[in-house]
Amino acid sequence: VGTISFARGVPAPECLPVEELADCARAALERDGRTALGYGSAAGYAPLREWIAAEHSVEPERVLITNGSLQGFIFLAQHLLARKRSRVLVEAPTYDRPLKILVGLGAEVTAIPMDDEGLDLDALEHELRTEPGPAFLYTIPTFQNPSGRTLSEERRARLIDLARRYDLLVLEDDPYGLVRFEGKLLPRLFDLNGSILYSSSFSKVIAPGLRVGYLVLPKALAFALEQIAVSTYITPALLGQATVLEYLRRGLLEPNLERVRELLRARRDAMLRALEREFPAGASWSRPEGGYFVWLDLPDGADAGELLRRADQAGVSFVQGSDFFPGSAGGESSARLAYSFVSPAEIEAGIARLAALLPAVTSV
Amino acid sequence: VGTISFARGVPAPECLPVEELADCARAALERDGRTALGYGSAAGYAPLREWIAAEHSVEPERVLITNGSLQGFIFLAQHLLARKRSRVLVEAPTYDRPLKILVGLGAEVTAIPMDDEGLDLDALEHELRTEPGPAFLYTIPTFQNPSGRTLSEERRARLIDLARRYDLLVLEDDPYGLVRFEGKLLPRLFDLNGSILYSSSFSKVIAPGLRVGYLVLPKALAFALEQIAVSTYITPALLGQATVLEYLRRGLLEPNLERVRELLRARRDAMLRALEREFPAGASWSRPEGGYFVWLDLPDGADAGELLRRADQAGVSFVQGSDFFPGSAGGESSARLAYSFVSPAEIEAGIARLAALLPAVTSV
Repeated sequence: VGTISFARGVPAPECLPVEELADCARAALERDGRTALGYGSAAGYAPLREWIAAEHSVEPERVLITNGSLQGFIFLAQHLLARKRSRVLVEAPTYDRPLKILVGLGAEVTAIPMDDEGLDLDALEHELRTEPGPAFLYTIPTFQNPSGRTLSEERRARLIDLARRYDLLVLEDDPYGLVRFEGKLLPRLFDLNGSILYSSSFSKVIAPGLRVGYLVLPKALAFALEQIAVSTYITPALLGQATVLEYLRRGLLEPNLERVRELLRARRDAMLRALEREFPAGASWSRPEGGYFVWLDLPDGADAGELLRRADQAGVSFVQGSDFFPGSAGGESSARLAYSFVSPAEIEAGIARLAALLPAVTSV
Repeated sequence: VGTISFARGVPAPECLPVEELADCARAALERDGRTALGYGSAAGYAPLREWIAAEHSVEPERVLITNGSLQGFIFLAQHLLARKRSRVLVEAPTYDRPLKILVGLGAEVTAIPMDDEGLDLDALEHELRTEPGPAFLYTIPTFQNPSGRTLSEERRARLIDLARRYDLLVLEDDPYGLVRFEGKLLPRLFDLNGSILYSSSFSKVIAPGLRVGYLVLPKALAFALEQIAVSTYITPALLGQATVLEYLRRGLLEPNLERVRELLRARRDAMLRALEREFPAGASWSRPEGGYFVWLDLPDGADAGELLRRADQAGVSFVQGSDFFPGSAGGESSARLAYSFVSPAEIEAGIARLAALLPAVTSV
């Protein structure tokens, strides 16, 4: 029996449109190879910038395409922390990679609690009244990594209002927004207010190995980050960007999204069904309408770290909740379960294995 | 009459093997799309790591492939400056981008003079006797950017000896080594001693837009940099790497090199011929046997900055020498002339225009 990975927040290989992308890569180079194969703008492949700009109803100068969106996050954090305050607000829990990057850049990270409707805005407002003011808030409002939670529509409006009143810079990281497989489409924070800093990527809607992420920023900020980009890698990798553009031009995104959503919905269903069947009262979990992740809170007294050690030996992996909190407290009884990578049958088997280990890691 | 750019150290568009790469990109994805389109190792596409490793007779674990070699330089500098001494030795002049990166990282940069045989090793040894010892030496021994100069064979052996005696880490940056169009092939520093840190790229031998650079490092150092890479972009852009591998497997590199060398030789010849014909006694320049650049020292009293301002208006561009020196001194009467981008006819016309401007910027 192989390991069943709930740790990998990545698409299953069968989600990748390999044949289509092979043809798009060839066509992209035949169409515009001299541009895509030369040094170009540090802000990315111009026709793709234009496409993204049109999609967000902004000028192309506001779009910065990077080698994956994490690289864009680094540029933004480097710039904002060098010029402004050193405190950064994040959700608790939050995506672990930006957390580590912020700590590495010397930021003081303040974690704001969440509930099932997303960020706790009373707690946020309390922090906004505390000096020194933060450099920015990092939030993933839709199908959050790691919790799978989504900020409610009412809270979206209030967050925009708080940002305006307290002059708070907000970075909306939105890689999962388009992989919604049920429920009502909510406006992006960026749709509610165009001064929100917006980040997304083609990793979850086409393929992650292409490494095409992007930021939509106010013009001056986009220009400042372009200078950091040119000093880092001269030009981002353009072949993947040109391939993405060809894919979009052929109208392949929407049918691919339909396919990916159905694959993810089946996996999410399998996970919720198995959790319901296998886990005892006292455990609770998020019920995402899209994205990759379920957040599992174990019954009181259960140790997620010990569960992970035993699960590893039993051939199941996940990421323990504490990895997604800054500092040394938080998430001790929680787990991030990714349903994106494994098949529905593996999901059912893996959840059963985890549940069987639970009594041994729970102190009564 | 359009601008004639001696500023752009980039291959001319007609040097790029567009059709071949279009077919290689398609074939690479058809062969191994699920790997190339997914998240993979932060150290790069495994089969390309193996190819590079075999080429350098090392284990694949010693190879780190990055989104262009400048990104690898940043990882290396971040790591070495965080752990060791803050002084870095560079050639004077040297490639301006690493210079800016070092300054940005807070390094104290010491410039070692060069002559026509490359780095002045007496000056280097003097610095090595000075405390505090440097974190590393950054050198481009072959067809250096910006000078076009090449470290002589005798000096290569002595540099290796100095590195051993003074326990000096040496980073050999070698993007131009394979674009030699005449003269004797010299051993790389890395060939003389496998503990030299080695950096190169496919930008000058295939295409820069692919953004495929690499480092060959001792195993522990490669592993440490891989951790920085994963925290920066998770995985480098794999499509370009898989395309490069397909190109190599098809045996296309050697014929492409032959073609690129002939294109560059014709351009170099045109530039040396025009300099000889147009420039007065008192001016001198390097005579590279490969690479992209000629370094021009203007006659005494000539101001390269003023020449650049006037040249811009006359439709010729270059990079002034002072950009390639740390601090505020050096290169005031020098220019980097790239012959890689423009045609032989443009080169002859551009050099004639520069020479015509020379009297006006020379104080006697």
